[in-house]
Amino acid sequence: MQTIKQRFQVEYNYAVFFTQHLFDTQNPLLKDFFQAYTEQGFQRKALVIVDEGFEQTQPDLKSNIRAYFAQNAAHIQLAAEIISVPGGEACKNDPSQFDKLVEAVDVFGIDRHSFVIGIGGGAVLDLVGYAAAVSHRGIKLIRIPTTVLAQNDSGVGVKNSINFHGKKNFLGTFAPPVAVFNDLTFLRTLDDRDWRGGLAEAVKVALIKDQAFFEWIEEHATALAARDEEAMAYLIHRCAEMHTDHIAGGDPFEFGSSRPLDFGHWAAHKLEFLTNFEVRHGEAVAIGIALDCVYAHKIGMLAESDLHRIIDVLTKVGFELYHSKLAENDKINLRNGLQEFREHLGGRLTIMLLEKIGKGVEVHELDADIIAQSVDYLESSKIIPA
Amino acid sequence: MQTIKQRFQVEYNYAVFFTQHLFDTQNPLLKDFFQAYTEQGFQRKALVIVDEGFEQTQPDLKSNIRAYFAQNAAHIQLAAEIISVPGGEACKNDPSQFDKLVEAVDVFGIDRHSFVIGIGGGAVLDLVGYAAAVSHRGIKLIRIPTTVLAQNDSGVGVKNSINFHGKKNFLGTFAPPVAVFNDLTFLRTLDDRDWRGGLAEAVKVALIKDQAFFEWIEEHATALAARDEEAMAYLIHRCAEMHTDHIAGGDPFEFGSSRPLDFGHWAAHKLEFLTNFEVRHGEAVAIGIALDCVYAHKIGMLAESDLHRIIDVLTKVGFELYHSKLAENDKINLRNGLQEFREHLGGRLTIMLLEKIGKGVEVHELDADIIAQSVDYLESSKIIPA
Repeated sequence: MQTIKQRFQVEYNYAVFFTQHLFDTQNPLLKDFFQAYTEQGFQRKALVIVDEGFEQTQPDLKSNIRAYFAQNAAHIQLAAEIISVPGGEACKNDPSQFDKLVEAVDVFGIDRHSFVIGIGGGAVLDLVGYAAAVSHRGIKLIRIPTTVLAQNDSGVGVKNSINFHGKKNFLGTFAPPVAVFNDLTFLRTLDDRDWRGGLAEAVKVALIKDQAFFEWIEEHATALAARDEEAMAYLIHRCAEMHTDHIAGGDPFEFGSSRPLDFGHWAAHKLEFLTNFEVRHGEAVAIGIALDCVYAHKIGMLAESDLHRIIDVLTKVGFELYHSKLAENDKINLRNGLQEFREHLGGRLTIMLLEKIGKGVEVHELDADIIAQSVDYLESSKIIPA
Repeated sequence: MQTIKQRFQVEYNYAVFFTQHLFDTQNPLLKDFFQAYTEQGFQRKALVIVDEGFEQTQPDLKSNIRAYFAQNAAHIQLAAEIISVPGGEACKNDPSQFDKLVEAVDVFGIDRHSFVIGIGGGAVLDLVGYAAAVSHRGIKLIRIPTTVLAQNDSGVGVKNSINFHGKKNFLGTFAPPVAVFNDLTFLRTLDDRDWRGGLAEAVKVALIKDQAFFEWIEEHATALAARDEEAMAYLIHRCAEMHTDHIAGGDPFEFGSSRPLDFGHWAAHKLEFLTNFEVRHGEAVAIGIALDCVYAHKIGMLAESDLHRIIDVLTKVGFELYHSKLAENDKINLRNGLQEFREHLGGRLTIMLLEKIGKGVEVHELDADIIAQSVDYLESSKIIPA
């Protein structure tokens, strides 16, 4: 019998909208979105899930959401309950949070023509996205990221995940949202650490892809550190644009093994884990970038002047570039981290290093001794943010 | 800030191979497949998961698998353990089976460049496919279906699932395999009910899409009932071809609401549930097809001669076309089943009915009284298989 060769393509479309005061009843953006989906014979529903951390900073959030949906009931029906989940990595570690969301999908009759709307930081959006992606084989997902990191990076991408037995992102899917709404005013509630956190991913993507954007960040580093909203709005838009371009232009669901956006991430993942997530993702990425840039300089790949500019800009926006856990156990922890990253990639290590500002290059090996020297360099530099 | 419009396509390719004695060390098919994947620097692994029901009929299965992989260790490394899971719907109802598979992925270091191989009936392949799809955001899946139903229908498709709190297929994804291997000799172990089960999906797809294939089934009904392997091989190949064509030609991941392959399935799903899965899927689909064809005849859509041919062929291959649960509670159960199917589809009912043999047509309403009359028709016909 002849072999059957199956081949097909699946197309994905979504928009990333930028707005302020999304749930103000005068703001037509979300209403217009649902109106465009209105179809005779369907009563589309929406299940809203909110990050408790964000909710606490916005006491009127749920009542604003109810008022907004009440006004637009002709297009979309809000589920009776707005669900809250704990913010941060905790929600991804606790299987009962996932179960709670799937149960809500069932109880409120959310079907494949309805929407799940996640409002919160990256961890909550990961959890909500995963629950939506696997319920009924995929419910339409709307992301409303409330942190810089989520608005400029994970929230506009195509991944979701939860942890399994403490293994980060062990369960997940590639499942693009149907829309992302970035509300600048939501960032006002962030503490300084989370405001800053997302800047590391901006520096990262600028370094590997866009020298001009890096220079823009250099020029606006002080303004960004001082919480200038206009500068932040531009930075988020440019990052989101580069992130979505990267996804569309490459290998959206990562069937291959190249992962350039993981620049600075191998050490960052290990550091987050070693500090039990006390070092937040953006902070860890800033250190990871610095470490790999020192490494690239030490092997003669990156010019010293470039290294200094990179360390300068990371310091100026407020990151500390050394953590004692990096040196612990005679740096064995970090070597293990590299080994884990190699396993995570399937046996062949691929690490993005920097040739110059704006241009990354992939290597397949890192030398443990030079990593250790790079840690020493960061320690001895004792770079303290301004 | 300007809205970012994201748009990309993801391409999927996979082959459905037809063979006999797949794990015979003389059979190069599987070896050639892994060889084509061999890439410098990667040690690809395979985690094999076997349906206990199938394993019991093939005492040498695991040792044959070990011998086959041992011979081809240059291309693929078999995980130390071959996992067994209970067959049938039970494995989809028990969350600990899913956990067991994800743990095995972790313990045996199965990464995104490695393979998960499921061997078994449709339920086991659904479970294995789901566990593979969500582990590390998707491990390469190979399906080796061991029933007619899985070889000609679900096993060559793009879906996977488990049940959640007793809700059938509540959790799942769309995730195409990287290959399907249909081994004709595996079907010898089936009892007559499971041999027959897959024929219902063949009749279904012929009725809605291909009159010539229906006529072929009519001609070979007696041979198929008598377990003629040559006839079965042709039937499976033709069904698999139509099923994969349907997926590629339409809406592979079902973003829309049309689901023509659900012909005969609304009543079938309810009947399986009402009988606690004592009526198997294929048997339920045969009854579902008969019921909807009687209905189509009663509303003047389907000619009586066509109805008789359909009932004849289903009876000839050995299906009973009535079950007492259909009439229970004054047929309220079946009305509820229709309502549940409507909810499952998102509020607007879409049911495929038959205009004539080879041509389906979608309707958006069914009349409860005429459904009840159709049940009476099937009961009074008292059609007992030859």
